[in-house]
Amino acid sequence: MMERADKGLAFMLQYENVAWYEDGAVKILDRRVYPTTVRYEVCRDHREVAKAIADMVTQSAGPYSAAAMGMALAAHECRDMSAEAQLRYLEDAAVTLSTARPTTRARMEQVTGASLEAARKALASGGSCEEALFAAAVDANERRYRKVEALAYHLVERFPAKGAVMTQCFAETVVGMMLRIAREKGKEIKLFCPETRPYFQGARLTATVCRDMGYDVTVITDNMPAFVMKQEGIDLFTSAADAITVDGHVINKIGTYQIAIAAKYHGVPYYVTGSPEPGHPDLSTVKIEQRDPEFVLQAMGVRTAAEGVKGYYPAFDITPPELVSGVVTDRGIYSPYELQRYLDEGGSAEMAV
Amino acid sequence: MMERADKGLAFMLQYENVAWYEDGAVKILDRRVYPTTVRYEVCRDHREVAKAIADMVTQSAGPYSAAAMGMALAAHECRDMSAEAQLRYLEDAAVTLSTARPTTRARMEQVTGASLEAARKALASGGSCEEALFAAAVDANERRYRKVEALAYHLVERFPAKGAVMTQCFAETVVGMMLRIAREKGKEIKLFCPETRPYFQGARLTATVCRDMGYDVTVITDNMPAFVMKQEGIDLFTSAADAITVDGHVINKIGTYQIAIAAKYHGVPYYVTGSPEPGHPDLSTVKIEQRDPEFVLQAMGVRTAAEGVKGYYPAFDITPPELVSGVVTDRGIYSPYELQRYLDEGGSAEMAV
Repeated sequence: MMERADKGLAFMLQYENVAWYEDGAVKILDRRVYPTTVRYEVCRDHREVAKAIADMVTQSAGPYSAAAMGMALAAHECRDMSAEAQLRYLEDAAVTLSTARPTTRARMEQVTGASLEAARKALASGGSCEEALFAAAVDANERRYRKVEALAYHLVERFPAKGAVMTQCFAETVVGMMLRIAREKGKEIKLFCPETRPYFQGARLTATVCRDMGYDVTVITDNMPAFVMKQEGIDLFTSAADAITVDGHVINKIGTYQIAIAAKYHGVPYYVTGSPEPGHPDLSTVKIEQRDPEFVLQAMGVRTAAEGVKGYYPAFDITPPELVSGVVTDRGIYSPYELQRYLDEGGSAEMAV
Repeated sequence: MMERADKGLAFMLQYENVAWYEDGAVKILDRRVYPTTVRYEVCRDHREVAKAIADMVTQSAGPYSAAAMGMALAAHECRDMSAEAQLRYLEDAAVTLSTARPTTRARMEQVTGASLEAARKALASGGSCEEALFAAAVDANERRYRKVEALAYHLVERFPAKGAVMTQCFAETVVGMMLRIAREKGKEIKLFCPETRPYFQGARLTATVCRDMGYDVTVITDNMPAFVMKQEGIDLFTSAADAITVDGHVINKIGTYQIAIAAKYHGVPYYVTGSPEPGHPDLSTVKIEQRDPEFVLQAMGVRTAAEGVKGYYPAFDITPPELVSGVVTDRGIYSPYELQRYLDEGGSAEMAV
């Protein structure tokens, strides 16, 4: 099966979430400890994949790849059952994987839905579900790469010939792709990456990608973006999104909203990459995931606050359309107020992060 | 000498920076490791005190107390010299201590200037410089407590009968005093404390004070203030200041500016405690201290970013008067645009943090 990887998985597999199915297991790069430690979580059944997703072993696009690969693993688990039983088993697995984290459920259902469709076809034609679902997972990655590449060209057009870009959290493929295209277009960009507490994805992941791609990259703490905009000059703020509602609200890693407010105050444009989700016409369908508040009371495993002090840990925040300069899609840049048009014109709602 | 402490050092000595001179040494509570570890830095000469200040062993009002106590230690060091030589020695010590950190130099010079004045009087009357300078240090603490108490009454008047207050960094005596007075006035306040990277003063120090005083206190990461204002509702944002210019700019711990922008966006008033400094008529005299950028690339001693990634560490930022609802002084609350009046009316420019 592995040879498929060589065909289309592009230049940046090294930055991929690396959730990969092979020989009855899904291996997921543990981004909680990366880059100081490189270890893999090895999941022997799809429930372990769901647990790894819930436990934040992987982030950004990682959970989507992990879910698709987890469906291939589920197909392996039920390979000796009847066709009907296999489909039931896979439908259950799809629910388990899609609901591992509440905020991303809609997108997760797209992923597992595509897997189920592939499973139905394979079962109808008497083929191997396991192979079909692995192929579906790889295809989903490839589609995502193509979509990200298309939007990255639009994003990089907004970069100055020489300047500074601020990121937020870890936009996975988008960061690598935008840097590749920025170089291709001869744009001299330096990056400022807020560290993104409490998981430090900005410091640990985004900054590492920027460095590996040879860019000048500076990590700042999450209380510095406004000062850096004022003092150092930032030309553009960009982030991906965990979800974008059709009416233009951006749901993304906690802190995005605050940086977007600071950007507005300093006249710095904020471009979010992604596309609107038909499953989220507005905020009424959005649930902000509250994670273990204790996690905020430590940093890199070391306790910061005294006993008896409470924590608070919303995983995401919501940035209203008034703070968004543009939604950068594979089909061009849209005003956050005209995202229905993207869908009407046939834009794909598949995730691109 | 210690008996002086019992007279005036008020209820909150436990929250005091605890810089104390006794028997040829200044002992400073090491706030870099507090509250998980309680250790003291023992400085055997005034240069060690200056180094401890530069190394951030103590913060907020701590450096001022440490400098005053360091002057008493310097007097101990030169006690066997001639009166003239003692004065020269103390003048040199004053420069060493005042310039330990660039941002606070003007206030430090007030502290060491008062010490020098006490030294001149003591030498003129043939008294002990050491005792006089220790007394001056204790007196400075007492004056500060009285000033903080006066301003805390004005601050607490702006608190709702029941509501939520956001803090920033560690406002030392102010936090303890405002909570004491809030209770006295029957105000039911809960606190949200941003953790204040990279030193975590909010998580480690401010939150501990709030807890010890029996308040409901929640620590949030520095990327959450805007979300908390929107989602949880914050009635008032308050911070102390490392300096306030006469034209209304607030120089305070990095992050204050960003929270003030978020507060403005949400219609949350921002009250800064302190008083304008005649030594800083405007920003032209203000120098933002840049600290070791590597410090931003770790958290609680654990490295976060990969090698080759740069850090950036401005210790302070500047909040313009347009974002400041009021400057809460011992003489009442002033508009940031009318601070000259505070000085004209005889307000004291001594620090109150």
